[in-house]
Amino acid sequence: MRVYLECIPCFLRQALQAVCLATKDKAMQEKIMREILQMLHEISWNTSPPEIGWRVHHMVKEMTNNADPYADLKRRFNELALALYPTLEEKVLHASNPFEIAVRLSLAGNMIDFGARPGETINVEEEIEKTLQEPLDKKTLEKFKKAVEQAKNILFLGDNAGEVVFDKFLIKQIGTEKITYAVKAKPIINDATLEDAKIAGLNGIVEVIDNGSDIPGTILEKCSENFIDAYKKADLVIAKGQGNYETLNDVDKPIAFLLKVKCRVVAQNMGRKEGELAIHLQNVYC
Amino acid sequence: MRVYLECIPCFLRQALQAVCLATKDKAMQEKIMREILQMLHEISWNTSPPEIGWRVHHMVKEMTNNADPYADLKRRFNELALALYPTLEEKVLHASNPFEIAVRLSLAGNMIDFGARPGETINVEEEIEKTLQEPLDKKTLEKFKKAVEQAKNILFLGDNAGEVVFDKFLIKQIGTEKITYAVKAKPIINDATLEDAKIAGLNGIVEVIDNGSDIPGTILEKCSENFIDAYKKADLVIAKGQGNYETLNDVDKPIAFLLKVKCRVVAQNMGRKEGELAIHLQNVYC
Repeated sequence: MRVYLECIPCFLRQALQAVCLATKDKAMQEKIMREILQMLHEISWNTSPPEIGWRVHHMVKEMTNNADPYADLKRRFNELALALYPTLEEKVLHASNPFEIAVRLSLAGNMIDFGARPGETINVEEEIEKTLQEPLDKKTLEKFKKAVEQAKNILFLGDNAGEVVFDKFLIKQIGTEKITYAVKAKPIINDATLEDAKIAGLNGIVEVIDNGSDIPGTILEKCSENFIDAYKKADLVIAKGQGNYETLNDVDKPIAFLLKVKCRVVAQNMGRKEGELAIHLQNVYC
Repeated sequence: MRVYLECIPCFLRQALQAVCLATKDKAMQEKIMREILQMLHEISWNTSPPEIGWRVHHMVKEMTNNADPYADLKRRFNELALALYPTLEEKVLHASNPFEIAVRLSLAGNMIDFGARPGETINVEEEIEKTLQEPLDKKTLEKFKKAVEQAKNILFLGDNAGEVVFDKFLIKQIGTEKITYAVKAKPIINDATLEDAKIAGLNGIVEVIDNGSDIPGTILEKCSENFIDAYKKADLVIAKGQGNYETLNDVDKPIAFLLKVKCRVVAQNMGRKEGELAIHLQNVYC
Protein backbone atom coordinates (compact mmCIF):
# COMPACT_ATOMS: atom_id res chain seq x y z
CA MET A 1 0.00 0.00 0.00
CA ARG A 2 1.36 3.40 -0.95
CA VAL A 3 1.46 6.58 1.11
CA TYR A 4 -1.72 8.64 0.92
CA LEU A 5 -1.68 12.43 1.34
CA GLU A 6 -3.46 11.86 4.65
CA CYS A 7 -0.37 10.04 5.92
CA ILE A 8 1.64 13.29 5.89
CA PRO A 9 -0.01 14.98 8.91
CA CYS A 10 0.03 11.57 10.63
CA PHE A 11 3.81 11.27 10.17
CA LEU A 12 4.16 14.64 11.89
CA ARG A 13 1.89 13.54 14.73
CA GLN A 14 4.05 10.45 15.16
CA ALA A 15 7.18 12.59 15.01
CA LEU A 16 5.83 14.89 17.70
CA GLN A 17 5.00 12.02 20.01
CA ALA A 18 8.36 10.32 19.52
CA VAL A 19 10.27 13.58 19.95
CA CYS A 20 8.48 14.35 23.22
CA LEU A 21 9.17 10.85 24.53
CA ALA A 22 12.81 10.91 23.40
CA THR A 23 13.94 14.24 24.85
CA LYS A 24 12.77 17.05 27.09
CA ASP A 25 15.14 19.52 25.40
CA LYS A 26 12.74 21.99 23.72
CA ALA A 27 15.32 23.34 21.27
CA MET A 28 16.21 19.82 20.20
CA GLN A 29 12.54 18.93 19.83
CA GLU A 30 12.04 21.86 17.44
CA LYS A 31 15.23 21.05 15.55
CA ILE A 32 14.10 17.47 14.97
CA MET A 33 10.60 18.48 13.90
CA ARG A 34 12.16 20.88 11.38
CA GLU A 35 14.47 18.19 10.03
CA ILE A 36 11.55 15.81 9.66
CA LEU A 37 9.60 18.44 7.72
CA GLN A 38 12.55 18.78 5.39
CA MET A 39 12.89 15.00 5.00
CA LEU A 40 9.18 14.66 4.19
CA HIS A 41 9.49 17.47 1.67
CA GLU A 42 12.32 15.70 -0.14
CA ILE A 43 11.60 11.99 0.08
CA SER A 44 9.64 9.99 -2.49
CA TRP A 45 6.10 9.25 -1.32
CA ASN A 46 5.86 6.34 -3.73
CA THR A 47 6.54 3.89 -0.92
CA SER A 48 4.61 2.28 1.94
CA PRO A 49 3.70 4.34 5.04
CA PRO A 50 5.78 2.16 7.41
CA GLU A 51 8.92 2.88 5.37
CA ILE A 52 8.52 6.62 5.86
CA GLY A 53 7.36 6.01 9.45
CA TRP A 54 10.62 4.18 10.01
CA ARG A 55 12.58 7.21 8.73
CA VAL A 56 10.69 9.55 11.04
CA HIS A 57 11.34 7.44 14.12
CA HIS A 58 14.89 6.67 13.07
CA MET A 59 15.67 10.40 12.83
CA VAL A 60 14.25 10.98 16.30
CA LYS A 61 16.33 8.16 17.75
CA GLU A 62 19.52 9.24 16.01
CA MET A 63 19.24 12.93 16.80
CA THR A 64 18.44 12.33 20.47
CA ASN A 65 20.81 9.38 20.98
CA ASN A 66 17.82 7.60 22.44
CA ALA A 67 17.62 4.10 20.98
CA ASP A 68 14.22 3.31 22.46
CA PRO A 69 11.96 6.29 23.26
CA TYR A 70 8.98 3.98 23.83
CA ALA A 71 10.77 1.73 26.37
CA ASP A 72 8.67 2.89 29.33
CA LEU A 73 5.41 2.62 27.44
CA LYS A 74 6.32 -0.88 26.26
CA ARG A 75 7.18 -1.93 29.80
CA ARG A 76 3.91 -0.53 31.11
CA PHE A 77 1.80 -2.35 28.53
CA ASN A 78 3.72 -5.61 28.95
CA GLU A 79 2.97 -5.48 32.67
CA LEU A 80 -0.65 -4.53 32.18
CA ALA A 81 -1.23 -7.32 29.66
CA LEU A 82 0.46 -9.88 31.89
CA ALA A 83 -1.66 -8.80 34.85
CA LEU A 84 -4.83 -9.32 32.81
CA TYR A 85 -3.69 -12.65 31.36
CA PRO A 86 -4.93 -15.13 34.01
CA THR A 87 -8.50 -13.78 34.04
CA LEU A 88 -8.63 -13.68 30.27
CA GLU A 89 -7.28 -17.21 30.02
CA GLU A 90 -10.13 -18.37 32.26
CA LYS A 91 -12.53 -16.62 29.92
CA VAL A 92 -11.13 -18.43 26.88
CA LEU A 93 -11.03 -21.82 28.60
CA HIS A 94 -14.65 -21.59 29.72
CA ALA A 95 -16.02 -20.10 26.53
CA SER A 96 -18.33 -22.10 24.28
CA ASN A 97 -16.37 -20.66 21.34
CA PRO A 98 -12.75 -20.47 22.58
CA PHE A 99 -11.25 -19.92 19.11
CA GLU A 100 -13.43 -16.86 18.51
CA ILE A 101 -12.64 -15.43 21.94
CA ALA A 102 -8.92 -15.99 21.32
CA VAL A 103 -9.14 -14.19 17.97
CA ARG A 104 -11.04 -11.33 19.60
CA LEU A 105 -8.46 -10.99 22.36
CA SER A 106 -5.66 -10.95 19.79
CA LEU A 107 -7.58 -8.16 18.00
CA ALA A 108 -8.11 -6.32 21.30
CA GLY A 109 -4.35 -6.39 21.87
CA ASN A 110 -3.90 -4.63 18.55
CA MET A 111 -5.19 -1.44 20.17
CA ILE A 112 -1.88 -1.06 22.01
CA ASP A 113 -0.49 0.88 19.07
CA PHE A 114 1.41 4.15 19.38
CA GLY A 115 2.02 4.40 15.65
CA ALA A 116 -1.51 4.63 14.28
CA ARG A 117 -2.93 6.43 17.30
CA PRO A 118 -0.20 8.69 18.63
CA GLY A 119 -1.10 10.73 21.62
CA GLU A 120 -4.25 8.85 22.38
CA THR A 121 -4.66 7.15 25.66
CA ILE A 122 -5.56 3.50 25.62
CA ASN A 123 -7.83 1.90 28.19
CA VAL A 124 -6.95 -1.74 27.61
CA GLU A 125 -9.68 -3.20 29.81
CA GLU A 126 -12.33 -1.10 28.07
CA GLU A 127 -10.92 -2.13 24.68
CA ILE A 128 -11.14 -5.80 25.62
CA GLU A 129 -14.76 -5.48 26.69
CA LYS A 130 -15.61 -3.64 23.47
CA THR A 131 -13.71 -6.07 21.27
CA LEU A 132 -15.52 -9.04 22.81
CA GLN A 133 -18.86 -7.48 21.84
CA GLU A 134 -18.12 -5.91 18.48
CA PRO A 135 -19.31 -7.39 15.18
CA LEU A 136 -16.93 -9.91 13.62
CA ASP A 137 -17.68 -11.61 10.32
CA LYS A 138 -18.42 -15.22 11.34
CA LYS A 139 -17.97 -16.67 7.86
CA THR A 140 -14.45 -15.26 7.61
CA LEU A 141 -13.74 -16.42 11.15
CA GLU A 142 -14.72 -19.96 10.16
CA LYS A 143 -12.60 -19.77 7.01
CA PHE A 144 -9.65 -18.50 9.06
CA LYS A 145 -10.15 -21.37 11.54
CA LYS A 146 -10.14 -23.89 8.70
CA ALA A 147 -7.02 -22.31 7.21
CA VAL A 148 -5.07 -22.54 10.46
CA GLU A 149 -6.23 -26.14 10.94
CA GLN A 150 -5.06 -27.09 7.46
CA ALA A 151 -1.76 -25.19 7.66
CA LYS A 152 1.34 -27.14 8.63
CA ASN A 153 3.71 -24.21 9.18
CA ILE A 154 2.39 -20.88 10.34
CA LEU A 155 4.51 -17.75 10.53
CA PHE A 156 2.87 -15.40 13.04
CA LEU A 157 4.00 -11.78 12.58
CA GLY A 158 3.59 -10.04 15.91
CA ASP A 159 2.98 -6.33 16.23
CA ASN A 160 3.32 -4.44 19.49
CA ALA A 161 4.68 -4.94 22.99
CA GLY A 162 1.87 -6.03 25.28
CA GLU A 163 -0.13 -7.15 22.28
CA VAL A 164 2.10 -10.25 22.18
CA VAL A 165 0.57 -11.39 25.48
CA PHE A 166 -2.88 -11.17 23.91
CA ASP A 167 -1.72 -13.29 20.95
CA LYS A 168 -0.92 -16.20 23.26
CA PHE A 169 -4.55 -17.28 23.53
CA LEU A 170 -4.77 -17.63 19.76
CA ILE A 171 -1.38 -19.33 19.56
CA LYS A 172 -2.54 -21.93 22.07
CA GLN A 173 -5.83 -22.43 20.23
CA ILE A 174 -4.04 -22.98 16.93
CA GLY A 175 -1.43 -25.33 18.38
CA THR A 176 1.99 -24.11 19.40
CA GLU A 177 3.95 -26.77 17.51
CA LYS A 178 3.32 -25.36 14.07
CA ILE A 179 3.88 -21.68 14.84
CA THR A 180 6.96 -19.52 14.44
CA TYR A 181 6.43 -16.08 16.00
CA ALA A 182 8.38 -13.15 14.54
CA VAL A 183 9.14 -9.80 16.11
CA LYS A 184 11.27 -6.78 15.18
CA ALA A 185 15.06 -6.93 15.39
CA LYS A 186 15.41 -3.52 17.06
CA PRO A 187 13.09 -1.12 18.91
CA ILE A 188 10.81 0.90 16.65
CA ILE A 189 7.80 2.77 18.05
CA ASN A 190 6.21 0.30 20.49
CA ASP A 191 6.69 -2.73 18.25
CA ALA A 192 7.61 -5.92 20.05
CA THR A 193 11.22 -7.15 20.07
CA LEU A 194 12.71 -10.45 21.29
CA GLU A 195 12.77 -9.00 24.79
CA ASP A 196 9.03 -8.28 24.72
CA ALA A 197 8.28 -11.77 23.41
CA LYS A 198 10.32 -13.18 26.27
CA ILE A 199 8.52 -11.02 28.83
CA ALA A 200 5.22 -12.17 27.33
CA GLY A 201 6.29 -15.75 27.98
CA LEU A 202 6.38 -16.88 24.36
CA ASN A 203 9.79 -18.52 24.56
CA GLY A 204 9.48 -22.18 25.29
CA ILE A 205 5.95 -22.20 23.88
CA VAL A 206 6.74 -21.42 20.24
CA GLU A 207 9.85 -20.69 18.23
CA VAL A 208 10.47 -16.94 18.40
CA ILE A 209 12.62 -15.20 15.79
CA ASP A 210 13.27 -11.63 14.81
CA ASN A 211 12.77 -10.49 11.24
CA GLY A 212 16.15 -8.79 10.98
CA SER A 213 14.53 -5.41 10.44
CA ASP A 214 13.11 -2.53 12.45
CA ILE A 215 10.60 -1.26 9.95
CA PRO A 216 7.17 -0.97 11.66
CA GLY A 217 5.73 -3.49 9.22
CA THR A 218 7.31 -6.24 7.11
CA ILE A 219 9.29 -5.26 4.04
CA LEU A 220 10.63 -8.59 2.82
CA GLU A 221 13.65 -7.07 1.04
CA LYS A 222 14.82 -5.66 4.37
CA CYS A 223 14.37 -8.85 6.37
CA SER A 224 17.07 -11.33 7.36
CA GLU A 225 17.76 -14.60 5.56
CA ASN A 226 16.64 -16.51 8.62
CA PHE A 227 13.29 -14.74 8.56
CA ILE A 228 12.87 -15.23 4.81
CA ASP A 229 13.48 -18.96 5.28
CA ALA A 230 10.67 -19.08 7.83
CA TYR A 231 8.48 -17.00 5.51
CA LYS A 232 9.11 -19.34 2.59
CA LYS A 233 8.54 -22.44 4.70
CA ALA A 234 5.22 -21.15 6.02
CA ASP A 235 2.06 -22.22 4.21
CA LEU A 236 0.11 -19.56 6.11
CA VAL A 237 1.17 -16.19 7.51
CA ILE A 238 -0.82 -14.55 10.30
CA ALA A 239 0.03 -10.86 10.25
CA LYS A 240 -1.02 -8.55 13.05
CA GLY A 241 -1.70 -4.85 12.74
CA GLN A 242 -1.85 -2.06 10.19
CA GLY A 243 1.91 -1.89 9.56
CA ASN A 244 1.97 -5.48 8.34
CA TYR A 245 -1.08 -4.88 6.16
CA GLU A 246 0.44 -1.73 4.66
CA THR A 247 3.63 -3.58 3.69
CA LEU A 248 2.29 -7.04 2.76
CA ASN A 249 -1.08 -6.31 1.18
CA ASP A 250 0.15 -7.08 -2.31
CA VAL A 251 2.54 -10.00 -1.83
CA ASP A 252 1.69 -13.36 -3.35
CA LYS A 253 1.38 -15.46 -0.18
CA PRO A 254 -1.53 -16.80 1.88
CA ILE A 255 -1.88 -14.22 4.65
CA ALA A 256 -4.49 -13.73 7.34
CA PHE A 257 -4.28 -10.14 8.48
CA LEU A 258 -5.72 -9.59 11.94
CA LEU A 259 -6.14 -5.96 12.85
CA LYS A 260 -8.28 -3.24 14.19
CA VAL A 261 -8.73 -0.67 11.40
CA LYS A 262 -7.38 2.48 12.97
CA CYS A 263 -7.20 5.10 10.25
CA ARG A 264 -9.14 6.29 7.24
CA VAL A 265 -6.49 5.45 4.66
CA VAL A 266 -6.16 1.81 5.72
CA ALA A 267 -9.95 1.59 5.93
CA GLN A 268 -10.22 2.97 2.40
CA ASN A 269 -7.53 0.66 1.07
CA MET A 270 -9.17 -2.39 2.67
CA GLY A 271 -12.70 -1.37 1.71
CA ARG A 272 -13.62 -1.39 5.39
CA LYS A 273 -14.76 1.10 8.00
CA GLU A 274 -12.55 2.89 10.51
CA GLY A 275 -12.78 1.15 13.86
CA GLU A 276 -13.73 -2.23 12.38
CA LEU A 277 -12.28 -5.51 13.61
CA ALA A 278 -10.81 -7.18 10.56
CA ILE A 279 -9.86 -10.74 9.71
CA HIS A 280 -8.65 -10.07 6.21
CA LEU A 281 -7.75 -13.18 4.20
CA GLN A 282 -5.38 -12.73 1.27
CA ASN A 283 -4.71 -15.66 -1.08
CA VAL A 284 -6.24 -17.99 1.49
CA TYR A 285 -8.22 -20.74 -0.26
CA CYS A 286 -9.70 -23.53 1.81
CA MET B 1 0.21 33.10 21.89
CA ARG B 2 3.13 31.43 20.17
CA VAL B 3 3.16 28.31 18.00
CA TYR B 4 3.48 25.08 19.99
CA LEU B 5 5.15 22.00 18.51
CA GLU B 6 1.69 20.43 18.46
CA CYS B 7 0.59 23.06 15.94
CA ILE B 8 2.89 21.56 13.27
CA PRO B 9 0.86 18.39 12.55
CA CYS B 10 -2.28 20.53 12.78
CA PHE B 11 -1.01 22.90 10.05
CA LEU B 12 -0.51 19.86 7.83
CA ARG B 13 -4.03 18.62 8.59
CA GLN B 14 -5.35 22.04 7.66
CA ALA B 15 -3.23 22.04 4.51
CA LEU B 16 -4.57 18.64 3.51
CA GLN B 17 -8.16 19.72 3.96
CA ALA B 18 -7.69 22.98 2.08
CA VAL B 19 -5.78 21.26 -0.75
CA CYS B 20 -8.52 18.65 -1.20
CA LEU B 21 -11.20 21.34 -1.25
CA ALA B 22 -9.23 23.57 -3.63
CA THR B 23 -8.34 21.08 -6.35
CA LYS B 24 -9.01 17.51 -7.45
CA ASP B 25 -5.67 17.35 -9.32
CA LYS B 26 -3.72 14.71 -7.37
CA ALA B 27 -0.31 15.79 -8.67
CA MET B 28 -1.04 19.39 -7.69
CA GLN B 29 -2.25 18.27 -4.25
CA GLU B 30 1.07 16.50 -3.64
CA LYS B 31 3.06 19.42 -4.99
CA ILE B 32 1.34 21.84 -2.61
CA MET B 33 1.73 19.54 0.40
CA ARG B 34 5.45 19.30 -0.39
CA GLU B 35 5.79 23.07 -0.69
CA ILE B 36 4.00 23.55 2.62
CA LEU B 37 6.39 21.08 4.30
CA GLN B 38 9.27 23.14 2.97
CA MET B 39 7.70 26.41 4.14
CA LEU B 40 7.11 24.99 7.63
CA HIS B 41 10.70 23.78 7.72
CA GLU B 42 12.02 27.24 6.92
CA ILE B 43 9.69 29.71 8.61
CA SER B 44 10.15 31.08 12.13
CA TRP B 45 7.82 29.43 14.64
CA ASN B 46 8.16 32.38 16.96
CA THR B 47 4.82 33.75 15.83
CA SER B 48 1.13 33.08 16.48
CA PRO B 49 -0.53 29.97 14.99
CA PRO B 50 -2.98 31.99 12.85
CA GLU B 51 -0.08 33.74 11.10
CA ILE B 52 1.37 30.42 9.95
CA GLY B 53 -2.15 29.13 9.31
CA TRP B 54 -2.63 32.09 6.99
CA ARG B 55 0.54 31.15 5.07
CA VAL B 56 -0.63 27.57 4.69
CA HIS B 57 -4.03 28.55 3.31
CA HIS B 58 -2.57 31.37 1.23
CA MET B 59 -0.21 28.92 -0.50
CA VAL B 60 -3.10 26.58 -1.28
CA LYS B 61 -5.15 29.42 -2.74
CA GLU B 62 -2.28 30.81 -4.81
CA MET B 63 -1.05 27.50 -6.17
CA THR B 64 -4.55 26.35 -7.16
CA ASN B 65 -5.82 29.74 -8.33
CA ASN B 66 -8.79 29.11 -6.09
CA ALA B 67 -9.49 32.23 -4.05
CA ASP B 68 -12.08 30.59 -1.81
CA PRO B 69 -11.78 26.80 -1.37
CA TYR B 70 -14.30 26.88 1.48
CA ALA B 71 -17.02 28.76 -0.47
CA ASP B 72 -19.39 25.77 -0.65
CA LEU B 73 -18.95 24.90 3.00
CA LYS B 74 -19.56 28.50 4.01
CA ARG B 75 -22.72 28.64 1.88
CA ARG B 76 -23.97 25.40 3.42
CA PHE B 77 -23.44 26.57 7.00
CA ASN B 78 -24.94 29.98 6.31
CA GLU B 79 -28.08 28.28 5.01
CA LEU B 80 -28.21 25.79 7.85
CA ALA B 81 -27.82 28.50 10.49
CA LEU B 82 -30.48 30.69 8.87
CA ALA B 83 -32.89 27.75 8.73
CA LEU B 84 -32.43 27.18 12.47
CA TYR B 85 -32.67 30.86 13.37
CA PRO B 86 -36.47 31.30 13.86
CA THR B 87 -36.79 28.35 16.25
CA LEU B 88 -33.74 29.44 18.21
CA GLU B 89 -35.00 33.01 18.41
CA GLU B 90 -38.23 31.70 19.97
CA LYS B 91 -36.09 29.82 22.48
CA VAL B 92 -34.22 32.98 23.46
CA LEU B 93 -37.37 35.11 23.64
CA HIS B 94 -39.15 32.66 25.91
CA ALA B 95 -36.18 31.85 28.10
CA SER B 96 -36.08 32.93 31.74
CA ASN B 97 -32.41 33.79 31.16
CA PRO B 98 -32.28 35.13 27.57
CA PHE B 99 -28.78 36.62 27.93
CA GLU B 100 -27.31 33.26 28.97
CA ILE B 101 -29.10 31.42 26.16
CA ALA B 102 -27.85 34.02 23.66
CA VAL B 103 -24.26 33.57 24.92
CA ARG B 104 -24.62 29.80 24.70
CA LEU B 105 -25.94 29.99 21.13
CA SER B 106 -23.06 32.26 20.16
CA LEU B 107 -20.70 29.66 21.66
CA ALA B 108 -22.54 26.85 19.86
CA GLY B 109 -21.97 28.68 16.57
CA ASN B 110 -18.24 28.63 17.28
CA MET B 111 -18.24 24.92 16.48
CA ILE B 112 -18.57 25.74 12.77
CA ASP B 113 -14.81 25.90 12.46
CA PHE B 114 -12.81 24.21 9.72
CA GLY B 115 -9.50 25.55 11.00
CA ALA B 116 -9.29 23.98 14.44
CA ARG B 117 -11.19 20.87 13.49
CA PRO B 118 -10.30 20.07 9.89
CA GLY B 119 -11.89 17.01 8.45
CA GLU B 120 -14.39 16.61 11.21
CA THR B 121 -18.04 16.63 10.46
CA ILE B 122 -20.15 19.05 12.41
CA ASN B 123 -23.71 18.28 13.47
CA VAL B 124 -24.90 21.79 14.26
CA GLU B 125 -28.20 20.79 15.83
CA GLU B 126 -26.45 18.33 18.14
CA GLU B 127 -23.87 20.97 19.04
CA ILE B 128 -26.60 23.44 19.95
CA GLU B 129 -28.33 20.95 22.22
CA LYS B 130 -25.03 20.09 23.90
CA THR B 131 -23.98 23.71 24.27
CA LEU B 132 -27.28 24.60 25.94
CA GLN B 133 -26.65 21.95 28.59
CA GLU B 134 -22.89 22.18 29.17
CA PRO B 135 -21.34 23.80 32.24
CA LEU B 136 -20.75 27.54 31.94
CA ASP B 137 -19.20 29.58 34.72
CA LYS B 138 -22.12 31.68 35.99
CA LYS B 139 -19.95 34.20 37.84
CA THR B 140 -18.01 35.02 34.69
CA LEU B 141 -21.25 35.15 32.73
CA GLU B 142 -22.59 37.74 35.18
CA LYS B 143 -19.38 39.73 34.98
CA PHE B 144 -19.53 39.61 31.18
CA LYS B 145 -23.16 40.79 31.28
CA LYS B 146 -22.20 43.70 33.52
CA ALA B 147 -19.28 44.60 31.23
CA VAL B 148 -21.44 44.74 28.11
CA GLU B 149 -24.06 46.79 30.00
CA GLN B 150 -21.44 49.31 31.11
CA ALA B 151 -19.67 49.48 27.73
CA LYS B 152 -20.56 52.30 25.39
CA ASN B 153 -18.79 51.07 22.27
CA ILE B 154 -18.36 47.39 21.64
CA LEU B 155 -16.28 45.98 18.83
CA PHE B 156 -17.51 42.44 18.12
CA LEU B 157 -14.94 40.35 16.26
CA GLY B 158 -16.83 37.67 14.37
CA ASP B 159 -15.30 34.35 13.48
CA ASN B 160 -16.85 31.96 10.97
CA ALA B 161 -19.53 31.93 8.29
CA GLY B 162 -22.74 30.55 9.75
CA GLU B 163 -21.48 31.37 13.24
CA VAL B 164 -22.40 35.01 12.52
CA VAL B 165 -26.07 34.01 12.47
CA PHE B 166 -25.68 32.55 15.96
CA ASP B 167 -24.08 35.79 17.18
CA LYS B 168 -27.23 37.74 16.34
CA PHE B 169 -29.04 36.61 19.47
CA LEU B 170 -26.27 38.00 21.65
CA ILE B 171 -26.03 41.18 19.59
CA LYS B 172 -29.74 41.80 20.13
CA GLN B 173 -29.46 41.06 23.84
CA ILE B 174 -26.58 43.52 24.22
CA GLY B 175 -28.23 46.24 22.18
CA THR B 176 -27.45 46.76 18.52
CA GLU B 177 -26.78 50.50 18.75
CA LYS B 178 -23.42 50.19 20.52
CA ILE B 179 -21.98 47.33 18.47
CA THR B 180 -19.65 47.36 15.49
CA TYR B 181 -19.25 43.88 14.00
CA ALA B 182 -15.98 43.10 12.21
CA VAL B 183 -15.29 40.33 9.71
CA LYS B 184 -12.34 39.37 7.49
CA ALA B 185 -11.51 41.41 4.40
CA LYS B 186 -10.98 38.36 2.16
CA PRO B 187 -11.87 34.67 2.31
CA ILE B 188 -9.64 32.60 4.62
CA ILE B 189 -10.63 29.10 5.72
CA ASN B 190 -14.36 29.41 6.58
CA ASP B 191 -13.98 32.78 8.31
CA ALA B 192 -16.85 35.17 7.72
CA THR B 193 -16.48 38.03 5.23
CA LEU B 194 -18.76 41.00 4.51
CA GLU B 195 -20.82 38.75 2.23
CA ASP B 196 -21.43 36.25 5.04
CA ALA B 197 -22.42 39.04 7.43
CA LYS B 198 -24.89 40.29 4.83
CA ILE B 199 -26.33 36.80 4.29
CA ALA B 200 -26.65 36.47 8.07
CA GLY B 201 -28.75 39.64 8.05
CA LEU B 202 -26.39 41.75 10.15
CA ASN B 203 -26.45 44.76 7.86
CA GLY B 204 -29.06 47.26 8.93
CA ILE B 205 -28.93 45.89 12.48
CA VAL B 206 -25.37 46.87 13.41
CA GLU B 207 -22.49 48.57 11.67
CA VAL B 208 -20.48 45.89 9.86
CA ILE B 209 -16.87 46.50 8.85
CA ASP B 210 -14.02 44.35 7.66
CA ASN B 211 -10.68 44.37 9.46
CA GLY B 212 -8.62 44.87 6.31
CA SER B 213 -6.89 41.54 6.78
CA ASP B 214 -7.42 37.89 5.97
CA ILE B 215 -5.45 36.39 8.82
CA PRO B 216 -7.63 33.82 10.65
CA GLY B 217 -7.41 35.84 13.85
CA THR B 218 -6.70 39.52 14.51
CA ILE B 219 -3.15 40.78 14.13
CA LEU B 220 -3.53 44.49 14.74
CA GLU B 221 -0.46 45.48 12.69
CA LYS B 222 -2.05 43.88 9.64
CA CYS B 223 -5.47 45.51 10.07
CA SER B 224 -6.80 48.55 8.21
CA GLU B 225 -6.87 52.07 9.61
CA ASN B 226 -10.64 51.99 9.63
CA PHE B 227 -10.62 48.86 11.78
CA ILE B 228 -7.98 50.27 14.13
CA ASP B 229 -10.16 53.35 14.62
CA ALA B 230 -13.06 51.13 15.66
CA TYR B 231 -10.73 49.12 17.89
CA LYS B 232 -9.43 52.24 19.61
CA LYS B 233 -12.92 53.69 20.04
CA ALA B 234 -14.24 50.50 21.63
CA ASP B 235 -14.24 50.27 25.41
CA LEU B 236 -14.92 46.53 25.14
CA VAL B 237 -14.00 43.98 22.50
CA ILE B 238 -15.93 40.74 22.17
CA ALA B 239 -13.71 38.30 20.30
CA LYS B 240 -15.07 35.01 19.00
CA GLY B 241 -13.06 31.86 18.48
CA GLN B 242 -9.60 30.42 18.96
CA GLY B 243 -7.93 32.46 16.21
CA ASN B 244 -8.81 35.70 17.95
CA TYR B 245 -7.61 34.35 21.29
CA GLU B 246 -4.33 33.17 19.77
CA THR B 247 -3.62 36.60 18.31
CA LEU B 248 -5.06 38.92 20.98
CA ASN B 249 -4.35 37.10 24.23
CA ASP B 250 -1.60 39.50 25.21
CA VAL B 251 -2.84 42.88 24.03
CA ASP B 252 -3.63 45.59 26.55
CA LYS B 253 -7.36 46.02 25.93
CA PRO B 254 -10.55 44.88 27.69
CA ILE B 255 -11.51 41.77 25.74
CA ALA B 256 -14.17 39.15 26.33
CA PHE B 257 -13.14 36.05 24.43
CA LEU B 258 -16.05 33.74 23.67
CA LEU B 259 -15.00 30.36 22.38
CA LYS B 260 -15.27 26.66 22.52
CA VAL B 261 -11.80 25.33 23.44
CA LYS B 262 -11.04 23.03 20.53
CA CYS B 263 -7.44 21.96 20.88
CA ARG B 264 -4.94 20.99 23.54
CA VAL B 265 -2.55 23.87 22.98
CA VAL B 266 -5.21 26.56 23.38
CA ALA B 267 -6.57 24.67 26.40
CA GLN B 268 -3.10 24.61 27.92
CA ASN B 269 -2.46 28.26 27.18
CA MET B 270 -5.81 29.28 28.70
CA GLY B 271 -5.52 26.96 31.68
CA ARG B 272 -8.73 25.27 30.60
CA LYS B 273 -9.86 21.88 29.37
CA GLU B 274 -10.31 20.81 25.76
CA GLY B 275 -13.98 20.94 24.84
CA GLU B 276 -14.82 23.59 27.46
CA LEU B 277 -17.13 26.54 26.76
CA ALA B 278 -15.14 29.63 27.64
CA ILE B 279 -16.04 33.19 28.48
CA HIS B 280 -12.52 34.45 29.03
CA LEU B 281 -12.28 38.01 30.32
CA GLN B 282 -9.00 39.87 29.75
CA ASN B 283 -8.48 43.31 31.33
CA VAL B 284 -12.19 43.48 32.04
CA TYR B 285 -12.79 45.18 35.38
CA CYS B 286 -16.34 45.92 36.45
